[in-house]
Amino acid sequence: MKKLLLTGFVPFLGLPINPTEEIVKTLDGKVIGEYEIVSRVLPVEFAESARQCLAHIDEIKPDVVISLGLAAGRTKVTPERIGINCRDGEVDNKGVQLQDSPIDDNGPAAYFSTLPIRKMVDILQESGYPAKISNSAGTYLCNNVMYATLHKIEQEKLNIRAGFIHIPASHELAVQKPQLPSWSLTDLQVSVVKMIESLD
Amino acid sequence: MKKLLLTGFVPFLGLPINPTEEIVKTLDGKVIGEYEIVSRVLPVEFAESARQCLAHIDEIKPDVVISLGLAAGRTKVTPERIGINCRDGEVDNKGVQLQDSPIDDNGPAAYFSTLPIRKMVDILQESGYPAKISNSAGTYLCNNVMYATLHKIEQEKLNIRAGFIHIPASHELAVQKPQLPSWSLTDLQVSVVKMIESLD
Amino acid sequence: MKKLLLTGFVPFLGLPINPTEEIVKTLDGKVIGEYEIVSRVLPVEFAESARQCLAHIDEIKPDVVISLGLAAGRTKVTPERIGINCRDGEVDNKGVQLQDSPIDDNGPAAYFSTLPIRKMVDILQESGYPAKISNSAGTYLCNNVMYATLHKIEQEKLNIRAGFIHIPASHELAVQKPQLPSWSLTDLQVSVVKMIESLD
Amino acid sequence: MKKLLLTGFVPFLGLPINPTEEIVKTLDGKVIGEYEIVSRVLPVEFAESARQCLAHIDEIKPDVVISLGLAAGRTKVTPERIGINCRDGEVDNKGVQLQDSPIDDNGPAAYFSTLPIRKMVDILQESGYPAKISNSAGTYLCNNVMYATLHKIEQEKLNIRAGFIHIPASHELAVQKPQLPSWSLTDLQVSVVKMIESLD
Repeated sequence: MKKLLLTGFVPFLGLPINPTEEIVKTLDGKVIGEYEIVSRVLPVEFAESARQCLAHIDEIKPDVVISLGLAAGRTKVTPERIGINCRDGEVDNKGVQLQDSPIDDNGPAAYFSTLPIRKMVDILQESGYPAKISNSAGTYLCNNVMYATLHKIEQEKLNIRAGFIHIPASHELAVQKPQLPSWSLTDLQVSVVKMIESLD
Repeated sequence: MKKLLLTGFVPFLGLPINPTEEIVKTLDGKVIGEYEIVSRVLPVEFAESARQCLAHIDEIKPDVVISLGLAAGRTKVTPERIGINCRDGEVDNKGVQLQDSPIDDNGPAAYFSTLPIRKMVDILQESGYPAKISNSAGTYLCNNVMYATLHKIEQEKLNIRAGFIHIPASHELAVQKPQLPSWSLTDLQVSVVKMIESLD
Repeated sequence: MKKLLLTGFVPFLGLPINPTEEIVKTLDGKVIGEYEIVSRVLPVEFAESARQCLAHIDEIKPDVVISLGLAAGRTKVTPERIGINCRDGEVDNKGVQLQDSPIDDNGPAAYFSTLPIRKMVDILQESGYPAKISNSAGTYLCNNVMYATLHKIEQEKLNIRAGFIHIPASHELAVQKPQLPSWSLTDLQVSVVKMIESLD
Repeated sequence: MKKLLLTGFVPFLGLPINPTEEIVKTLDGKVIGEYEIVSRVLPVEFAESARQCLAHIDEIKPDVVISLGLAAGRTKVTPERIGINCRDGEVDNKGVQLQDSPIDDNGPAAYFSTLPIRKMVDILQESGYPAKISNSAGTYLCNNVMYATLHKIEQEKLNIRAGFIHIPASHELAVQKPQLPSWSLTDLQVSVVKMIESLD
């Protein structure tokens, strides 16, 4: 059976929970479509998150890597089109802050996702779950994991499809934040399952 | 058994569906808490919506009136605090547009909702459904129905509690609109039921 | 010559500056149209702001009262349509927080502004300054000052026109806040002058 | 004297004006810092905008290319970090719509701007003009021009610095659109001048 590495993140930037952590833990070990799901939760640390993700790839040898991240403020499920060679933004959970810093000094400017992002969006929309391709995964940890994963796959000529998907906040988070758009955790999780089912 | 008149609206402003219509139809005839639900769907017409709502009150003689409206763009369930004596905004479904026009030339500036709006918000939030009191029901049909209902109750000294609750768009609507925050219809409906259950 | 009491507020909720304070200080003593401007800066305290505003009215005996407030997040100049009999929201600058608390236990639910708000909006828009009538001044200090002023005028049968106008953040504020829409202080001030000029 | 090619766009997507057109026309022929400004207005057509921009580079042989675009909805001046090899989005002014279409089949995924974007943002912020680096120029005409320009420079090993800067809507536009954040045309133009002055 084919294997799918599904990653989420721990909470960050003072938010009390991270729905991606809950979703990947729930789906760990499940079989969805042709894939056995192997889940890992990543730290929100520039020095560690990508390193650990790459180590998981070496250990698990997945056919597909889908990394999930929380995009507080977004209203739709948004598969990312591209990861860029840049780290910037708020402090991470270790207090580290970077500005305009390349992820790999010798890497290209960007990598496109190799997930079927258009198909994923179409299937979600047809199923009644609002979805849209995003053209920026930002420059924080999410983008870092996306770029580093695709860079490793390219460098080592691995036969792995990979990409990043941002999801909205969960209702659980939004009850604590005045303006945050949110979905139920159930809707978020069903959306992730539907995207995995869309894979060949 | 006590009776609760639950109103929704037909679609408007070019939107293809209105989740309030679906919710009130689904709940029609149900018993929730101590209340039998009697549902009515109102037109989006300045000349008709309030008139029909008041006629439904005369016919049904409810103990409570809860009117639901869609607030496209809101991220939370928002019981309205106040209805104001003003009609303004976009054209209605008959092409009528009003500007700064009083609902009742001799009516007071505004009426506060007599629903337990704070308790409703607290119960939703505790149940994991983001909710917040809204301080403006706008000046369109929703506010018109709210003001007219509270004005009738005051004028006729009726023993009825009444108010208006705006809900976010449904996922079904948001798949057709690029930026609209949305909840599943299930979440919207459960929220309405929880607010009704909060009534004495 | 007719007199116009123009009020602004000190900074609040941790924001470092309040453009309304700067604008009212700059316009103090100026003659605009038929009006001599008398400016006062109000504290952001539930116990004091309205009390001081009413005392200024007694002292200055203005023909018109225009109170200005900052609406961080708004993109247009927004004359308020209505002030409501409610105090709620964040803590004030003294640490006081109120919830669902009437401003006057015996007062009506709301008062409409007696400023020519539609004319003000039309003149601003024609002059190229985005403007829109707002249907809610919130339930914080701004609404408190608006309601208390209109209530005093009604109770004491004073021949004074009064109302509240919210303005966007200034660029000066927005350079410190990631998402805040803003105008230059010049644009904000010119807009206020244009609204005063629109008065008979 | 060094030359700077400054491009703007004609109006698009039904908007009546495009502030970038007005700004580049006003600055055409001016000397700012060490640069003579040569301005060109580009069409909003996938087939033409990049082709014309590249022809202008061949003709003018500038030392620097700054392309301006309108980002309706943004609240700050946003120098773009990166242009990506993708065309997607709404129909252009000729009715052409593309989806997930590469700009150059053999080009890399993306190019970073070679303008001093961090310095530009710092100078604007210090001068009281809200600014922020953007991580996505989208996938419409703006990104197309940015990518095509940087691709040509790379392919032909030209000694030209180039990049794209999105600006907010002007007040003139926002008086016609209910929710659009806006700046005065003066503020927008001064910001562009300040960014040009920041160049060595």
